[in-house]
Amino acid sequence: MRSSQLLAPTLREAPRDADTVSAKLMIRAGLIRKIASGLYDWLPLGLRSLKKAEQIIREEMERLGAQEVWLPTIQPRELWDETGRWGVYGKELLRFKDRKEAEFCYAPTAEEVITDLVRKDVNSYRQLPLALFQFGSKFRDEIRPRFGVMRAREFYMKDCYSFHASEADAEVFYKKAYDAYIKIFERCGFKFRAVEADSGAIGGSFSHEFMVLAETGEDDIVSCGDCGYGANKEKHGDATACPKCAKTNLSITRGIEVGHTFKLGTKYSDSMKAQYLDEKGEHKPFIMGCYGIGVSRAVAANIEQNSDENGIIWTKSLAPYQVAIIPTNYAEPKIKEWADKLYAEIPKLGVDVLLDDRDERAGVKFKDADLIGYPLRITLGEKGLAKGIAEVKPRSEKNFQEVPLDNVLAEVRKYFSA
Amino acid sequence: MRSSQLLAPTLREAPRDADTVSAKLMIRAGLIRKIASGLYDWLPLGLRSLKKAEQIIREEMERLGAQEVWLPTIQPRELWDETGRWGVYGKELLRFKDRKEAEFCYAPTAEEVITDLVRKDVNSYRQLPLALFQFGSKFRDEIRPRFGVMRAREFYMKDCYSFHASEADAEVFYKKAYDAYIKIFERCGFKFRAVEADSGAIGGSFSHEFMVLAETGEDDIVSCGDCGYGANKEKHGDATACPKCAKTNLSITRGIEVGHTFKLGTKYSDSMKAQYLDEKGEHKPFIMGCYGIGVSRAVAANIEQNSDENGIIWTKSLAPYQVAIIPTNYAEPKIKEWADKLYAEIPKLGVDVLLDDRDERAGVKFKDADLIGYPLRITLGEKGLAKGIAEVKPRSEKNFQEVPLDNVLAEVRKYFSA
Repeated sequence: MRSSQLLAPTLREAPRDADTVSAKLMIRAGLIRKIASGLYDWLPLGLRSLKKAEQIIREEMERLGAQEVWLPTIQPRELWDETGRWGVYGKELLRFKDRKEAEFCYAPTAEEVITDLVRKDVNSYRQLPLALFQFGSKFRDEIRPRFGVMRAREFYMKDCYSFHASEADAEVFYKKAYDAYIKIFERCGFKFRAVEADSGAIGGSFSHEFMVLAETGEDDIVSCGDCGYGANKEKHGDATACPKCAKTNLSITRGIEVGHTFKLGTKYSDSMKAQYLDEKGEHKPFIMGCYGIGVSRAVAANIEQNSDENGIIWTKSLAPYQVAIIPTNYAEPKIKEWADKLYAEIPKLGVDVLLDDRDERAGVKFKDADLIGYPLRITLGEKGLAKGIAEVKPRSEKNFQEVPLDNVLAEVRKYFSA
Repeated sequence: MRSSQLLAPTLREAPRDADTVSAKLMIRAGLIRKIASGLYDWLPLGLRSLKKAEQIIREEMERLGAQEVWLPTIQPRELWDETGRWGVYGKELLRFKDRKEAEFCYAPTAEEVITDLVRKDVNSYRQLPLALFQFGSKFRDEIRPRFGVMRAREFYMKDCYSFHASEADAEVFYKKAYDAYIKIFERCGFKFRAVEADSGAIGGSFSHEFMVLAETGEDDIVSCGDCGYGANKEKHGDATACPKCAKTNLSITRGIEVGHTFKLGTKYSDSMKAQYLDEKGEHKPFIMGCYGIGVSRAVAANIEQNSDENGIIWTKSLAPYQVAIIPTNYAEPKIKEWADKLYAEIPKLGVDVLLDDRDERAGVKFKDADLIGYPLRITLGEKGLAKGIAEVKPRSEKNFQEVPLDNVLAEVRKYFSA
């Protein structure tokens, strides 16, 4: 992509109501724009990062054996009445009537619809286990939307639901899904922890949260320095008691929840009479699990975890573009020649690249590149070219390295294979 | 993909309320399920076709120079009041209040939100032309949802909006967008026509509709056999007068609208005061165009155009899988060996493949393959293998061809490169 063709409106100042590091930087770097409380446009650079997170998640969900589906955002009250959640949910469930006065909600989650699908189309233990996932918009009418897209009202989520013929199988799959989540968050480049989110005392259900570690996180994580055990302090009743280890080495850190896995048991299949026939021909309720990732939130969490006073420091896998080529003066033929050459060659390494071909001062280009946070910056200037070098600088480091022009591609390859 | 791992619940009978060929076949083939009036789940096979259409559209929009963004489905009344559309739109605009009694709608289209974005972040003629597109859910609260996903309430759409500094530039881009649409529908494999959709009499605005030809279409297309001119009879006031050609050779065919391009002029930029500074430093309203494609509708239209009494006949580019390998008995080692071999090799040709590894009779597998409509079927049976051949049959043809086992890959390559 050429900067001259890209809508990436950077701002010197964040708007006053941007209340956290990632919200400020996402707006300043031109990744998102707010249109109303808790509602955001995703601009081209922001959407690229969102799509990269989506693709990592999709690949790992498919590797897990889950199949992608797509469910409506608008769901009928009748299904939500079956589980009682229409009544239980508070005002964060956006309810409304259609033109015929029938009641619907904008789904914050899709247990009812997926259970309805499976009870109608899956009827034998031979069709199990079955796992279905989707990407899509969800809505929660938060009383106080904040932190930019991190606690927006409309957000982008991956939700997955699994169906099993036995507790044992559900637990085997749960463990695999847990491992897939570890893989996903590793590939995103997060520093994160998986922690227990409830005590597991009730009916064979239990859950884990996947926390991106950040001082600005909303949740307290209780960790034991001896055994490595971790739990969400608020949701896990027993957390501070920490029964599995010595209590003398506990510490508290903060995290942003980006993923959540639940072993649901038969909560939904019982209330919705979702049953299969077992080997003996008897009706049994499906044992279920569900597995969510806040995709838009994960993008914000990546920034919350990686930034400095100049802007975002993207991880290699989620950066909208991985390399920015900065010609100090693109009108200069020698500079243009090398910029165009690298712009043509770098994609062949499987690395995506932006060329800042704008007629702007080098200082403006550097500021924008730092703000947007491309992992690697390649500067091509007159003095450097006279010496036969480009300046190569990872966003995460202070100083650039002088790299002979003919070695730049090898340097890029090296940096992204590390 | 292996059939044993795939949720593709086929049905012998369509439900009573399925009222058109594509709705019946999409449900019978296990591509979609209805959850309420005008609301559908997309199952794995249906979603694959939807994603293939999406990717073709994305590639051509990017080639056109448009940038992908993502806008909220939920939009505030204030923006819709600026253009007056809050009041103009009928009950098909789904309106509701949030928990704080603020008014919102579920967007059927996004002119207001995109114009708001551009007026805030684009201010110079040097940033023009600019074209932005998105994929996403749209909602129209149809009084009588029907024809399956073809006239659903929640549907999947690509919408693109362009902004220009002059009428001339808007028209140049309009022509390019028109050509991109031709390319998209050709790549989808449609038999289609682009027709004029309004008379162009008012204020420099005009539009075209892209019609997939099908007897079951809802729109009448007036065509002139002499000059090739075509128009939507209902929307184009002058259509039957057909001023551009002799009136003696008119005919009427039917079509399903899958795309629509509009040259909007300044309708939205005037009412929303969306302006840029021209070369003289004067404020001017953006000249706009918009360009929609009903992605979910296009998938249905593909089926509406291509089916027979046994099921769907997918075009090569939109088929959920392009090849189905059918071992008559997968438990037979020799058959399994060849099935597995082809299943491993065919993807290397850039062709995606399904292996029907289910423990079902061959007749059941054939029926399902015909119903789902994979373009090419490769049958591996005991008798054939004894002769050293596989039976290769395009879905669109009556008879299979005996192909020596070692030639099957070459045959697949030939079929899909044609």
